[in-house]
Amino acid sequence: MDTSSSLPNALDLSGHLSYVSRNRFASPLKDIFKYMGTPGMISLAGANVSIYPPSVNVQHGEVPPTSDLLTLSIPKVAPKRGELDLSSVLQYGDCSGLPELRTFLHKFTQDVYQPAYGNWEIQLNEGNTASWTKVVRLLCDPGEHILLEEFTFPSAMGPWVPQDCKGVPVKMDGRGLRADDLEHVLSTWEATHPGIKRPHVLYTIPCAQNPTGSTMDAERKQEVYRVCQQFDVVIIEDSPYEALQFRPFEITPEPAAPVEQNGEEFRQALVPSFLRFDTDGRVIRLESFSKTLAPGSRLGYFVANPLFTERLLRGTEVESQTPSGWSQSIVSRMLHTWGQDGYLEWLSRLRDAYELRRNIMCAALAKRYVALPAEKYAAAVPGCEGVALYPLGTDPASIQPDQLPVASFVPPAGGMFLWIKYYVSAAPGFQKLVEAGDADPEATFMHDMWTALAENLVLLTPGSYYVPFSGKDKVTTTERDAERGIGFFRFAFSYGDRDEMEEGIRRVEEVTKRLWQY
Amino acid sequence: MDTSSSLPNALDLSGHLSYVSRNRFASPLKDIFKYMGTPGMISLAGANVSIYPPSVNVQHGEVPPTSDLLTLSIPKVAPKRGELDLSSVLQYGDCSGLPELRTFLHKFTQDVYQPAYGNWEIQLNEGNTASWTKVVRLLCDPGEHILLEEFTFPSAMGPWVPQDCKGVPVKMDGRGLRADDLEHVLSTWEATHPGIKRPHVLYTIPCAQNPTGSTMDAERKQEVYRVCQQFDVVIIEDSPYEALQFRPFEITPEPAAPVEQNGEEFRQALVPSFLRFDTDGRVIRLESFSKTLAPGSRLGYFVANPLFTERLLRGTEVESQTPSGWSQSIVSRMLHTWGQDGYLEWLSRLRDAYELRRNIMCAALAKRYVALPAEKYAAAVPGCEGVALYPLGTDPASIQPDQLPVASFVPPAGGMFLWIKYYVSAAPGFQKLVEAGDADPEATFMHDMWTALAENLVLLTPGSYYVPFSGKDKVTTTERDAERGIGFFRFAFSYGDRDEMEEGIRRVEEVTKRLWQY
Repeated sequence: MDTSSSLPNALDLSGHLSYVSRNRFASPLKDIFKYMGTPGMISLAGANVSIYPPSVNVQHGEVPPTSDLLTLSIPKVAPKRGELDLSSVLQYGDCSGLPELRTFLHKFTQDVYQPAYGNWEIQLNEGNTASWTKVVRLLCDPGEHILLEEFTFPSAMGPWVPQDCKGVPVKMDGRGLRADDLEHVLSTWEATHPGIKRPHVLYTIPCAQNPTGSTMDAERKQEVYRVCQQFDVVIIEDSPYEALQFRPFEITPEPAAPVEQNGEEFRQALVPSFLRFDTDGRVIRLESFSKTLAPGSRLGYFVANPLFTERLLRGTEVESQTPSGWSQSIVSRMLHTWGQDGYLEWLSRLRDAYELRRNIMCAALAKRYVALPAEKYAAAVPGCEGVALYPLGTDPASIQPDQLPVASFVPPAGGMFLWIKYYVSAAPGFQKLVEAGDADPEATFMHDMWTALAENLVLLTPGSYYVPFSGKDKVTTTERDAERGIGFFRFAFSYGDRDEMEEGIRRVEEVTKRLWQY
Repeated sequence: MDTSSSLPNALDLSGHLSYVSRNRFASPLKDIFKYMGTPGMISLAGANVSIYPPSVNVQHGEVPPTSDLLTLSIPKVAPKRGELDLSSVLQYGDCSGLPELRTFLHKFTQDVYQPAYGNWEIQLNEGNTASWTKVVRLLCDPGEHILLEEFTFPSAMGPWVPQDCKGVPVKMDGRGLRADDLEHVLSTWEATHPGIKRPHVLYTIPCAQNPTGSTMDAERKQEVYRVCQQFDVVIIEDSPYEALQFRPFEITPEPAAPVEQNGEEFRQALVPSFLRFDTDGRVIRLESFSKTLAPGSRLGYFVANPLFTERLLRGTEVESQTPSGWSQSIVSRMLHTWGQDGYLEWLSRLRDAYELRRNIMCAALAKRYVALPAEKYAAAVPGCEGVALYPLGTDPASIQPDQLPVASFVPPAGGMFLWIKYYVSAAPGFQKLVEAGDADPEATFMHDMWTALAENLVLLTPGSYYVPFSGKDKVTTTERDAERGIGFFRFAFSYGDRDEMEEGIRRVEEVTKRLWQY
C-alpha cells in the first residue's frame, strides 16, 4: 500500500511508549496465522462462527427454516448488485480494519495530507473518542502532564484525569496554539516543575478547534512542529473538522453565499495537516467520519508510524477488536461508490453548507450589535481580535481605542463553533462581585449569565467547560493566571436552522443589554 | 423499564470500584441537559451535526446536489416501509444505547434470566472484548489478582496483564469451575499471599466455557455464588455461548440429529444464569450478539447494578461513546421484527445447528478411535472423565482400569469447542524428553505434536494458550503445579463443514498413531 517509499522512514520513538503499552503481549495466535494459508489445511483452530440469520435480512426479519441451518454449509452471502457485501463484515475481522477501506484511506491520506515520511500506516478505529483513549494508553503513564490548548474539548480529558494526569495549557491566539508559548512552557519546565517529567505529548485540535474555532495555518504548524522536535514531543492531531475549512469572511448583516469549488479546488485550498511537516513520524493523526458522514458510524482512523500502529493494534485486539463491521462496510461502500473525486466533492459541498451557517450566525450578530473590526476600533483593548461587538446605536466615531466592547470574536475559519469573548468587567454586576470579594468573580458572573440566558430560552455552552484540568490548586481564574475580567461562551452553528440561529442571537442580545445596562 | 420492583435492590458495592473508576468526573453537560426539554428553548450548545449524505444512500452512492445542502433544514430521514429508521442512529446518541433496543433486552433479561434483585439495568456496549475491558477498569487496580478458570480465553487477559495484574486459576471439572477450590483459594489467601489484597473479582465463562466447553449447572452456580458472597467477590459472567446449550448426548459413530424445540421450550430448558441467584447485585453479566447474530456487529450489553452501570457510563461517555449506530439499528430492527418469541425460536434453531456440529465431531472421533465411557473403562485413571479414546482395534474387555487412553474428553454441553486431554506420558517421545531432563516436557511434547499436526494439514489451538498468566515464576507445568503427563488441544466445531471435520479428525488420528506408536 506504500506509495511514498522514496521518503525516509519514521524515527524510533519507542521511548515514548507507556508502561502498559510496552507490556502488551503478542497474540498467541501468530503461530496459527503462519500456517493458515497452507494449501489443503483444515483449521479446527478458530472460533469463527458459521451461521448468521440468512442474509441478515433486516428488511423482512424472517426466521429461516431449520432445514437451512442443518445443512452445515457456510452461507456465502452473495452480494446482489447494489447491495452490501456482508461476507467479510459479519465475521470476526482484521483489527486494523477492512483492507479495501484502508486502501482507500491510504490513497486519500497520501493525496490530501502528503505525510513527510515514508512508512506511515492507516488503522481504523471507533471514532476519535475511542482513538484518543487508545493513544492515552499508548503514550501516557499515570500522573503525567499533557500539553494542550488553553481551551480544549472537555471529553478529551476523560481518559487521563482519572489516572491523575494533568493538563498543561498552552496559550492561543486567533491562529490557534502559540508556538512561542509552547517553547516557553517546555524550556522553563525544569525550573517551574522541578523533579517532574517534562511533557512528551501534545494534544491539539489544529483545525477549527473546539471550542475556539481557531485554525493553525501552515506557518504556525511548522513553528509548533519545530518546537516539538526540539523537545521530543509527540503531536496528537485530532482533526474531525478538517474538511470544514471556510473561506475568509467579511461580517455583514446579510449572510454571504459560499463560492462553490470542485473537489480538486477544495483539496488544494486545504491548510496543510501536521503530517505535511512530519519528517520524524511524531504525529498521530486522529481522523473521523463523525463530522463528514455521520457521528453514529463510530468510525475513524489513525495515521501513524508503524511502531505506534503495532502497539495500538496489540491493544485493540484484546480491548475492543474491530470497529463495527456494518459501519465499516457502509462507509467503505459509500466511499468506493463515490471514488476519491466524488468524496472530495461531497466534502466541498458539506463545507459550503457549514460555511453558510457560519455566515448566517455572524450576520445575525451584526444585526443585533454594531460589529466592527477590532484592529481598528479596539486597538488598545488587550487581547481583542477579529470582530468587536458594541451596543446597537453606538456611533463608531465615538469609540475610544481602549473602550471595552460587549464582546468580540474571531470569525472561525472552519468547523461548527463561534467562540465569543465577553468583556465582563464593563458589566455593573461583575464590579459588584469584585467589590463583595467573590473568590472567582469571572466564574460567578458567567454562571449567572448562563442561567439568565437559559431562562431567556437560549442555551450556550459556558467557556468554563473548556478549561483544562491542571490540578485542584488551579481552579479559579486567579489561580490559573488567566485573563481577568473576561468570560467566554461557545455558540454552535452546526445544528439549528436559520430562524433558530437568528432568534437565538436576539435572545442573547436581550440578556447582554440587561447585564451590561446599555 | 423496571418490571421487578417487588424484589429488593442491590447491595452497596462501591468498595469494589477501582481508583480510576472512582475518579471519573460527571459530564459537565448535566446543567445543559436539565434545560434541554424546556419548551421554546433554542439550543446553540450542542455539537450535533445536521447534514448527512442524503438517506446515507449506500445503494447508489450519489453525491447530492449542493442546493439540497444549502437549505439549512435538517434532513429528516423518513423511514420507508421495510427500511431502517436512521434518524436516531446517525446522530450522537445516548451512550447507554438505543432506548428501544434496551427496552427489548430488559424484557428478554427479565423473562429469560430472571435476576434475583430489583434495580438491575441494561447498558449496551461494543461486544464482550470491549465490555470486559471496561469492567477491568471499573473494578481492578494495577497489580491486583483476578480469579478465573484454570483454563481461560487468552484475550481476556489482554486488558489486565499489561497493568501487572495476575490471574488466580481456580480448578475445574466437567461441571466447570469448582466451588470447593474457589473457597480453598480464598480462605487460604492470607496464608498463601501474606500482605497481598485478596481477589475481589471472579471472571468466569460459566456456559460452554472457552476452551473447555464445560457448563456450570444450577447447583454449581449456587455453590460458587455462596462462596462469592462469603468473600465479597464480584462475579463477571461472560456468557456469549449462553444460547448454545446442547442436549445430553450418547457417543455413536453416526451423528444424531437434534430434537427440535420451540422458543418457549428452549427458554425453559436453559440452565439458569448467575443472575437468577444474584440477590446482592454482585453479578455483572456480559452478553453479546457475536455468537447469536454476527461477530461483526460488535454489539453486546451489560446487565448490572445501577452503581456499576453509572460508573461504566461515565467511562463510556469519554472513552468510546455509543456502539455503532448502524449496528444498534440493524440489531434492534431484527429483534423487533422477530419479537421475543421469534428471537427465542431463532436461538433454538441456532442451538440445533451447533449441536449437530458437536455430534458430527464426536461421531468422527468415535469412527477413528474406540470411544468408551471413562467412568467404566478408565475408572482408575486420575482425572479421566467423559469419553476415553483408545486406539482402533482395542478390545474393550482387555482394558485395565488404570490403563491410559490416548485421550479423553467431556462431550460439551454447549458452545463451539471440544477440549481434548492427551495422556502424553504413554507416548514414547514424551518419556525421552523426561529422561533428557527437559524443563517442561509437557509443553515441549505438545508443541512438537502441534507442529506435527500442522504439517499433517490440520490446525488446532494448543492448550497452552489458555493457561492464565499468574506471574513469570509460574510458567512451566511444574511451577504451575499442574497435572503432569497431560496436554490439551481445543477442537473448534463452529466453522468447518462435515467433510472438513471428519477429514480433520482422520488427520489427527494419523498423528496420534505415530506419536503413541500403537
